[in-house]
Amino acid sequence: MTLVSSRISPVRWHHDKVSLIDQTRLPQEYTVVEISRCNDMAEAIKSMIVRGAPAIGVAAAYGMYLGAREIETTQTNVFLKELEKVAQLLRETRPTAVNLFWAISRMLRIAYETPGTVEEIRAILLQTAQDIQAEDVQTCETIGKNGLAVLPTQPHKLRILTHCNTGALATAGYGTALGVIRSAWQANRLLKVFADETRPRLQGAKLTAWECVQEGIPVTVITDSMAAHCMKQGMVDAVIVGADRITANGDTANKIGTYSLAVVSKMHNVPFYVAAPLSTVDFQLATGAEIPIEERDPSEIYQVGKTIISPQGADFYNPAFDVTPAELITAIITERGAVKPSELLGLKY
Amino acid sequence: MTLVSSRISPVRWHHDKVSLIDQTRLPQEYTVVEISRCNDMAEAIKSMIVRGAPAIGVAAAYGMYLGAREIETTQTNVFLKELEKVAQLLRETRPTAVNLFWAISRMLRIAYETPGTVEEIRAILLQTAQDIQAEDVQTCETIGKNGLAVLPTQPHKLRILTHCNTGALATAGYGTALGVIRSAWQANRLLKVFADETRPRLQGAKLTAWECVQEGIPVTVITDSMAAHCMKQGMVDAVIVGADRITANGDTANKIGTYSLAVVSKMHNVPFYVAAPLSTVDFQLATGAEIPIEERDPSEIYQVGKTIISPQGADFYNPAFDVTPAELITAIITERGAVKPSELLGLKY
Repeated sequence: MTLVSSRISPVRWHHDKVSLIDQTRLPQEYTVVEISRCNDMAEAIKSMIVRGAPAIGVAAAYGMYLGAREIETTQTNVFLKELEKVAQLLRETRPTAVNLFWAISRMLRIAYETPGTVEEIRAILLQTAQDIQAEDVQTCETIGKNGLAVLPTQPHKLRILTHCNTGALATAGYGTALGVIRSAWQANRLLKVFADETRPRLQGAKLTAWECVQEGIPVTVITDSMAAHCMKQGMVDAVIVGADRITANGDTANKIGTYSLAVVSKMHNVPFYVAAPLSTVDFQLATGAEIPIEERDPSEIYQVGKTIISPQGADFYNPAFDVTPAELITAIITERGAVKPSELLGLKY
Repeated sequence: MTLVSSRISPVRWHHDKVSLIDQTRLPQEYTVVEISRCNDMAEAIKSMIVRGAPAIGVAAAYGMYLGAREIETTQTNVFLKELEKVAQLLRETRPTAVNLFWAISRMLRIAYETPGTVEEIRAILLQTAQDIQAEDVQTCETIGKNGLAVLPTQPHKLRILTHCNTGALATAGYGTALGVIRSAWQANRLLKVFADETRPRLQGAKLTAWECVQEGIPVTVITDSMAAHCMKQGMVDAVIVGADRITANGDTANKIGTYSLAVVSKMHNVPFYVAAPLSTVDFQLATGAEIPIEERDPSEIYQVGKTIISPQGADFYNPAFDVTPAELITAIITERGAVKPSELLGLKY
């Protein structure tokens, strides 16, 4: 395995290209994919070389710039029309995470609002993508701090369970839910992490475990179905998960299995936190019922590595996300503070 | 794949040997392992070539006979002393399923109660193993009938979710929970089966899916974490699972993930049934807190086929079973009828 720098950065702007850590190959191989064309970025998002709602937002912002660079015109109006097509291409990669749409909109808006030549607009687009990335790191660090303030005070050293990967790999470099866990670790308030393996794509067993091992954070991987059993035995003090889209009432779409985890947390009175930047909140949607849920290829279920698990002739159902209703959520932790889901509207800019 | 006879029989007595379907190789390969020594039977149970509480009982009964055959003496008292050692060897294979202990005790008892020569005792031991096997098929068919009588009456064609494999492969040849599903299918009361894949060993994705495909029963495999999401969308009418040990109060130890499933079923008002022969009930234990839970090798979590999922340096926790408290169980379906957990004691012979 190649040496990994102390700060894991899934998306990096470097020599006029975007370098992506190939998250489909971790933890076996640490490889970096270089992307210089918008089409390739769209493919990388679809195939989950880059994944995690905030990281997708950053990748899509750079994708917009790469697309802008490919438009061969000096006429602003032609350029903007073509840029709309680039935006549409990128929007069609993943339907659930709202950060994707948020980043694309911000890039489009800045293009429309910037007076000047096509060349000048391109320059401001690159700057905006870099701003989105830098802001995300800042936002995650603030989420970490805010999360630490609302975690249970007893016991002092917490055993925190998390689902999927919401770490540096899923963001611009610090993490949302795993960012809170990082903050707890730095503050000496963490005993250990339980990482749900997170079937079907195993982001917990692969990526969260990998990040924790990189930083020396003690991590125990369990299958998703073991979380309730662990809680029943009093082994879990808190649950923190990320989000792909939160609606105005606090309903939260996140990786499949999150809803199940929220139900069993409630049953055991284990506090259940959602950590996400405000860019994940879709204030235009009233409730989670309106969130489109991506369905992915059945092979994600019936194949692991080269091993085919199931017999031919069986059917599969593979929703990538589910929706956790607000009433199962103890608090939503954002960069503007941690609030009850019912208070989320008060954080709107 | 070799042609499979219409009745799947995981344990078969044939030419003075036991033939076991190697369940670690399904569904990719249908292979049969021949066992003629007691030690090999103990290994086959440990390594899960044969698995499923009732099937383990049948296999252990034959294991007792194979052990009896290896004892070189004509003195009854020496023979019985050696047979106790065989029993101990087999008892140490799997700690949770009570059918194992039940079958071994029955074999021992018959040996002690049979007057006559060692040769005569050996003959009665073989006969008893065959009886246990034949009775299990009969018992399962009766469980199927009794289960059918208590399933919800609406809708007429049910969508039933099950966990792990409790079918012909897990028993002497019909199934407990999957036996009820088989009965529903034969009675035209089944629309489809949802099979939890059942991590870590994937008995649902592999074995339940395989059995359903063999019989033309429509089956949709989901990851364990999707069950709650499916229920929330109204896609599941009932849940039926098997059991490895049921205590006098109705608490039920079963494959890890069953407890989580019971909690989410309760939350969605989906009836939750346990189907098991009375030999699975351990009337000597008052509650589930007394059931020993087997912990298995971490490699079952971090390796699928030849693929290593997790990075070195991570820990793993791998309990093979969990305990579902009686209050989450709608009814326990046995060969003597389906009862509320609180009425289980009334079925004691």
